[in-house]
Amino acid sequence: YDTIISGGTVVTASDRILCDVAIKDGKIVALGSGLTGADEVIDATGKLVLPGGVDAHVHIAQPSGEGIVMADDFESGTRSAALGGTTTVMPFCLQEKGQGLRAALKDYHAKADGECHVDVSFHLIISDPTEQVLGQELPALVEDGYTSFKIFMTYEGLALKDREILDVMSVARDTGALVMVHAENYDAIRFLTEQLEKRGQTAPRFHATSRPIAVEREATHRAISLAELVDVPVMIVHVSNREAMEQIRWAQNKGLTVLGETCTQYLVLTEKDLDGLGMEGAKYVCSPPPRDTESQEACWEGLRTGVFTIFSSDHCPFRYDDPQGKLTPKGRTSFRWVPNGIPGVGARLPVLFSEGVMKGRIDLERFVAVTATNPAKTYGLYPRKGTIAVGADADIAIWDPTKTQTLTHDLIRDGADYTPYEGIEITGWPVHTLLRGKTVARDGEVVGQKGLGQHLSRAKSPFAVQRDPVAS
Amino acid sequence: YDTIISGGTVVTASDRILCDVAIKDGKIVALGSGLTGADEVIDATGKLVLPGGVDAHVHIAQPSGEGIVMADDFESGTRSAALGGTTTVMPFCLQEKGQGLRAALKDYHAKADGECHVDVSFHLIISDPTEQVLGQELPALVEDGYTSFKIFMTYEGLALKDREILDVMSVARDTGALVMVHAENYDAIRFLTEQLEKRGQTAPRFHATSRPIAVEREATHRAISLAELVDVPVMIVHVSNREAMEQIRWAQNKGLTVLGETCTQYLVLTEKDLDGLGMEGAKYVCSPPPRDTESQEACWEGLRTGVFTIFSSDHCPFRYDDPQGKLTPKGRTSFRWVPNGIPGVGARLPVLFSEGVMKGRIDLERFVAVTATNPAKTYGLYPRKGTIAVGADADIAIWDPTKTQTLTHDLIRDGADYTPYEGIEITGWPVHTLLRGKTVARDGEVVGQKGLGQHLSRAKSPFAVQRDPVAS
Amino acid sequence: YDTIISGGTVVTASDRILCDVAIKDGKIVALGSGLTGADEVIDATGKLVLPGGVDAHVHIAQPSGEGIVMADDFESGTRSAALGGTTTVMPFCLQEKGQGLRAALKDYHAKADGECHVDVSFHLIISDPTEQVLGQELPALVEDGYTSFKIFMTYEGLALKDREILDVMSVARDTGALVMVHAENYDAIRFLTEQLEKRGQTAPRFHATSRPIAVEREATHRAISLAELVDVPVMIVHVSNREAMEQIRWAQNKGLTVLGETCTQYLVLTEKDLDGLGMEGAKYVCSPPPRDTESQEACWEGLRTGVFTIFSSDHCPFRYDDPQGKLTPKGRTSFRWVPNGIPGVGARLPVLFSEGVMKGRIDLERFVAVTATNPAKTYGLYPRKGTIAVGADADIAIWDPTKTQTLTHDLIRDGADYTPYEGIEITGWPVHTLLRGKTVARDGEVVGQKGLGQHLSRAKSPFAVQRDPVAS
Amino acid sequence: YDTIISGGTVVTASDRILCDVAIKDGKIVALGSGLTGADEVIDATGKLVLPGGVDAHVHIAQPSGEGIVMADDFESGTRSAALGGTTTVMPFCLQEKGQGLRAALKDYHAKADGECHVDVSFHLIISDPTEQVLGQELPALVEDGYTSFKIFMTYEGLALKDREILDVMSVARDTGALVMVHAENYDAIRFLTEQLEKRGQTAPRFHATSRPIAVEREATHRAISLAELVDVPVMIVHVSNREAMEQIRWAQNKGLTVLGETCTQYLVLTEKDLDGLGMEGAKYVCSPPPRDTESQEACWEGLRTGVFTIFSSDHCPFRYDDPQGKLTPKGRTSFRWVPNGIPGVGARLPVLFSEGVMKGRIDLERFVAVTATNPAKTYGLYPRKGTIAVGADADIAIWDPTKTQTLTHDLIRDGADYTPYEGIEITGWPVHTLLRGKTVARDGEVVGQKGLGQHLSRAKSPFAVQRDPVAS
Ligand SMILES: [Zn+2]
Ligand SMILES: [Zn+2]
Ligand SMILES: [Zn+2]
Ligand SMILES: [Zn+2]
Ligand SMILES: [Zn+2]
Ligand SMILES: [Zn+2]
Ligand SMILES: [Zn+2]
Ligand SMILES: [Zn+2]
Repeated sequence: YDTIISGGTVVTASDRILCDVAIKDGKIVALGSGLTGADEVIDATGKLVLPGGVDAHVHIAQPSGEGIVMADDFESGTRSAALGGTTTVMPFCLQEKGQGLRAALKDYHAKADGECHVDVSFHLIISDPTEQVLGQELPALVEDGYTSFKIFMTYEGLALKDREILDVMSVARDTGALVMVHAENYDAIRFLTEQLEKRGQTAPRFHATSRPIAVEREATHRAISLAELVDVPVMIVHVSNREAMEQIRWAQNKGLTVLGETCTQYLVLTEKDLDGLGMEGAKYVCSPPPRDTESQEACWEGLRTGVFTIFSSDHCPFRYDDPQGKLTPKGRTSFRWVPNGIPGVGARLPVLFSEGVMKGRIDLERFVAVTATNPAKTYGLYPRKGTIAVGADADIAIWDPTKTQTLTHDLIRDGADYTPYEGIEITGWPVHTLLRGKTVARDGEVVGQKGLGQHLSRAKSPFAVQRDPVAS
Repeated sequence: YDTIISGGTVVTASDRILCDVAIKDGKIVALGSGLTGADEVIDATGKLVLPGGVDAHVHIAQPSGEGIVMADDFESGTRSAALGGTTTVMPFCLQEKGQGLRAALKDYHAKADGECHVDVSFHLIISDPTEQVLGQELPALVEDGYTSFKIFMTYEGLALKDREILDVMSVARDTGALVMVHAENYDAIRFLTEQLEKRGQTAPRFHATSRPIAVEREATHRAISLAELVDVPVMIVHVSNREAMEQIRWAQNKGLTVLGETCTQYLVLTEKDLDGLGMEGAKYVCSPPPRDTESQEACWEGLRTGVFTIFSSDHCPFRYDDPQGKLTPKGRTSFRWVPNGIPGVGARLPVLFSEGVMKGRIDLERFVAVTATNPAKTYGLYPRKGTIAVGADADIAIWDPTKTQTLTHDLIRDGADYTPYEGIEITGWPVHTLLRGKTVARDGEVVGQKGLGQHLSRAKSPFAVQRDPVAS
Repeated sequence: YDTIISGGTVVTASDRILCDVAIKDGKIVALGSGLTGADEVIDATGKLVLPGGVDAHVHIAQPSGEGIVMADDFESGTRSAALGGTTTVMPFCLQEKGQGLRAALKDYHAKADGECHVDVSFHLIISDPTEQVLGQELPALVEDGYTSFKIFMTYEGLALKDREILDVMSVARDTGALVMVHAENYDAIRFLTEQLEKRGQTAPRFHATSRPIAVEREATHRAISLAELVDVPVMIVHVSNREAMEQIRWAQNKGLTVLGETCTQYLVLTEKDLDGLGMEGAKYVCSPPPRDTESQEACWEGLRTGVFTIFSSDHCPFRYDDPQGKLTPKGRTSFRWVPNGIPGVGARLPVLFSEGVMKGRIDLERFVAVTATNPAKTYGLYPRKGTIAVGADADIAIWDPTKTQTLTHDLIRDGADYTPYEGIEITGWPVHTLLRGKTVARDGEVVGQKGLGQHLSRAKSPFAVQRDPVAS
Repeated sequence: YDTIISGGTVVTASDRILCDVAIKDGKIVALGSGLTGADEVIDATGKLVLPGGVDAHVHIAQPSGEGIVMADDFESGTRSAALGGTTTVMPFCLQEKGQGLRAALKDYHAKADGECHVDVSFHLIISDPTEQVLGQELPALVEDGYTSFKIFMTYEGLALKDREILDVMSVARDTGALVMVHAENYDAIRFLTEQLEKRGQTAPRFHATSRPIAVEREATHRAISLAELVDVPVMIVHVSNREAMEQIRWAQNKGLTVLGETCTQYLVLTEKDLDGLGMEGAKYVCSPPPRDTESQEACWEGLRTGVFTIFSSDHCPFRYDDPQGKLTPKGRTSFRWVPNGIPGVGARLPVLFSEGVMKGRIDLERFVAVTATNPAKTYGLYPRKGTIAVGADADIAIWDPTKTQTLTHDLIRDGADYTPYEGIEITGWPVHTLLRGKTVARDGEVVGQKGLGQHLSRAKSPFAVQRDPVAS
């Protein structure tokens, strides 16, 4: 063997077993008791040996409007992932209006190649569903392994009309791609924003007022209904509250394949965080906005009961103290211009571990399921990613469940200059991260060269295609 | 007194009392036992004395597309109403694109003046919500007594975008008007229609396939959500099934003022009725389409439990055997071109009485409530209309609860050449209809001159304005 | 006419009409405009003319355990009713173990005869369902006009076992009687009470702890289920909270005839009221106990949406400062011994009027429905009682909707020495109460002799028997 | 190694991995690729390697009333289990009235010792909760590893009163035992049974009529409520229908720890199966009875969505053609006397595999979860039992997913003379069963000596005790 991780408690989405893990050529080749014969032995006694996290929803180096620059390139974004125990990230490749999908992908691959500390795999964003895109490019790209894409029901330049959504979903149905939906009602947000601006209510906290729960719930119901009409599975991403969650649960109980994702911010932040002095609230501007403590409770319940099968960061980083970031001059004139998104790829796992597992809200197996196994399965990366099993990539995060520290940006080290989770007391930390058997982070430091991370072509989602029920 | 109706059982929305009714100058002036001293005494012994019906949703003489002519003018439409025990109808005044609301009203009044057998009062249809319309005309017309209007979420040339709906609802909120919504998703219907047409599925029965329950449920949820955001009451008209009904109930339980209406066709017809040979199914083409027996059961339940407070006909008549009607040549090429709507103003009350009251599904008081009292209250006609009480207009239908006959178009006598309710065995019939004290129909014949019916200016809906809780 | 009430706004469960009311021989004989020709004219200008209240749930002169005396006899109890605008009360006739029903009735009639200021009609309480009682007495008494009875799922000496409940319900089914259920789980209350007493938690406030919401919800579900098995309607009395209410709503949506009642205490009191210093909390000891503000909100919603059709007082009065009342020596040793019940027959209508109608939670017609019309209909007193209509008894309460005062026991004048509603600001008051045309209370004083009130034999409940759908 | 199972697809509750399994001293010691060096190699190429089933609900050699003999002793019952891929069964040790728990256990151990082909572990049945039993015996036995017990809400001689249930649950709370509840309302069943018998409706099919869904739903709600009051987890066993399931889901959504189990009969049988000629229906008499196809659908949904976490057989075998079995002479006089229960320990896994996995209703991982991992975890046998992982007992069932055959009793070979699942076409079969590394069944034949199976002492259920969140 190349490496043996010995003495730790190996955790999968269903099991928690004291055993050793043997690695060879980047793969897990054996699980056993008292394994020997490796070049390197990592002593994991008293530690947890978890599959490296799969963060299925991150934004890196994405164009974000004139004068605004996203805080992370692929080097810094994946560095933070590695430090936070995540070994695969799934960023979005944004099609701009008038642009072809292949052209967009070329750009993103160029930005990512040779820069990554962990593996990456792109989702597409369809913003311009022309006949060429839907008839030619998209089907071809699905076959090439870009098997999922996101569509938006809001944002200038991104929002698709219902008819476009139906057409795009039809292509997903025909090709076996998985559709992810950003569900907020664009017209309603514009209407409320204009009202607020007319009243001079332009501070960051009014960002939350401009997109209340009903705006998200409505779009969620609509997305589900359109998917029902096309008869295609759909993933509702970044769900923030009980009402939207109830739409998903209703659909699931009705037998529809409607999947749900929630994110760190909806578990530990609230609308109150946008209330800071001056522009401080801008640090928490993201969409949907954080809600209230009842919504947090609902999202925990959703993670526990299976309404949500995936937990992501929706990492979308902007520097705060930066005219190209949250403090863009235009942002002072209205919340509408504050760059929309918050960093979180590095904090995702420690926050969920500490607030979820250690506080008894979810168990350890569920932690692994929602942060690694389910995202890998859902998006066609399994069994290569997302579990600790013979034959899988040796993507492993070794956690010290006893390490206690206060969360600061120093521990996260993405390209932003703050973390919205600053100050949370965290118990448990990923002290050692391996990517395909190689150590990429250890004791809070990135180890080795960037560029170890590769792009992953993906199989089709099992939710989107019929599988042999018993084949592995 | 001018007239006394003696010996009948007087029924209101809450009471059922054996007593006489005295009428003077078109008004009810006394209820009593053994009243005497009238020019005319109508013996109602063994009969039910009910408030004349208020049909809050009818279409008369409305332009319906090139080459298509609606089967009723105001004379024939109100004639059928009178024969069916209805003394007030509320037709729609349709604004056409580019047209002003006052101009539209002028047209409709011209068509109605001097033609009506029963009273009429127009709802507006807002199809072109320009700044002029929303800022000037509509507020002025609400003050003039046109206190309700309908908007559409489907139909070419009528469908409003979400933003337009929000703007129109804002005007309703500011003026105290009541918004009625036709809730079906336009984009989804077009999408499904094109798919069906591509597959050659163009027979009338595919009209139902092209607008399934999810299409109505989605729009219902959206209409409720937009009204919730604007904080304005909303009436969901012609609800056809349980899923849409559950959206309304959910909103009501949440404390929103969301009102619901169902119609005759959803209680006694099903999608199967569209399955006839050749073009026979065209006789049942209306939107939303009739569903299935489970949906019928749900609509009965909604009437019983108060989810629906209004029962209307959605009378929208086209002749069947007529190239300007259901058998328009284009209709043979696709269900899309079949004139959309069915007649029902005359059949509404007998069908509900027979299927509802006599079969024990609703009680007599509830019958009065949903067919007369509630529509009158909801749309600002109460207490002038909708009940039998001192001071109210003497609009009265005397029912023989024992009369049994098979429903045929002969009994209805609107301008169409068929009734979709043909063949139903009916127990109970309105044998004598009085409008403001004058007999307008008796024993199946219209009595007296057309033109007795007047247009009614209306107060604002109590749902849309704050009232003194104890003033009458 | 004997009397004319002129110029007031007459309100029924569905209508609100400015008109005069003419009375002859104790009956309403005419409603009209400008009626004349009466011995007595009562000017009701600016007033509301409502049907006298029907309080369907009161306890008067009921044995309440050794050393405890109920605060009201029939004179004082009905006096308070008259002062509070109520003209019919329905007290319980309690069968004691080993006693026959006729024997029990004889006792109660003896206590009531010649003592009452308003009409009374007894429900039975079945505590000893022997073969003789179920096979002989009860069927005969139902035919004699005692058409409803209450059973208990808790209380030593009263609680029936499930099998007994099923047997009693079977008799109700066969005879057309209506079953009322006190739904709390006896075993659970005993279990919790013993635990509390073991811990020394014996103060009055632990009364509420000993019968939490789950205890009521469970028994409610069970009562509904047993009624479902027997296929008999059931009335769940004194519902206090959302969870129990949801059981009723669920059953109603399922198509079962399950009726619900809520009471004054569940709208305006909470568990906190039991928290007073020393024994002060004893003033609020009743079962089920008041809950919290969320439960209040639920009960208002239930009144509004029709889950509850009846609003009663559950008047069950004990003096506070009295060793035979709330301050019985044993009560200091444990809440278990505090006399269980609170007075309310006089406060019921003013509190609901002020908190409900004047605060916009229910409308005036709904007020009449739940306080008079529905109880009269449900228990077979309609149309003699419960409405203002020709032929009905002239039981009328004239309300001054502008009168504002602070509620004190002086205004109520039952036999207790306090009111649990002390201090509530009340807008609106019944300033004149007529029983069968005779004034029984006016301007806060009882008028005339006791003994005007009679016992009423009742028809069977329309919910319990099949009726001709169109007969009055 | 002693044994290597090579080339199969190893399935756990979350993973499906092609790898080898190495066994030594009865334990799984390694999972790997290309493992070598074993005395015995089992070629599992093309096969599925699953954890041996854990059947958490079986009855073996249990006294069943005078003149009735259960069809299985421990030899035959565990033989059938082994043939059906199950390696651990959890039979009940029934306390008889007046008997101590230790005395009962002594009897059952005596019957089981040396007889078993697979491992066994007893649940207790508490039928006589005396002070001695609750205060002394039960706490001691929980510490000794009998960490779960069942109570009954029905059956003569077994049904506990609510107060007894509360007392027993209190002991469970204090000791960390897990309470299983048989939820049917005894009084209601007796009531219905007597009614049926009075009407002469005594054929086996009236067994189902005598215990309708409401009887089970009510008891389920009550059991949940009592557990809520005591604040203790509860397992509702053998849930048969949607209404009972909705009670469980409601409780789970409310945050209560309420667990649910369903069984083979509720997925593939219906009430119609009791309709056979003569006494044929007796073959399907069990409690709760099978319901209808809608209930089946509900139970599948419950397995899928997690309402049910455990799938058991409720094996309770009686011979059909036997005067000591289903054809007991008394059974001909009334369904009440037909021995209550059906065999199923052998058929459980093949039926669920074929109807569930192969028909796409649940996936393979869920199959493992509900048939092995979850029962093992829930009842304190994990990680020794219920998964394939290093350190676990080598309890393994090798399945041929392609084997197709018609189910007959020959394939099951328990002590009964029929299987209620006769005639179902089954795809997939456990062709090789190992217990702690030893082959106990192969190719439809039991291998080796009886007596290999041992009794297992169990840890407390993680649901019943607080655990360290990160310890294995
Ligand atoms: Zn998004
Ligand atoms: Zn995003
Ligand atoms: Zn319409
Ligand atoms: Zn219409
Ligand atoms: Zn009571
Ligand atoms: Zn009471
Ligand atoms: Zn059982
Ligand atoms: Zn069992």
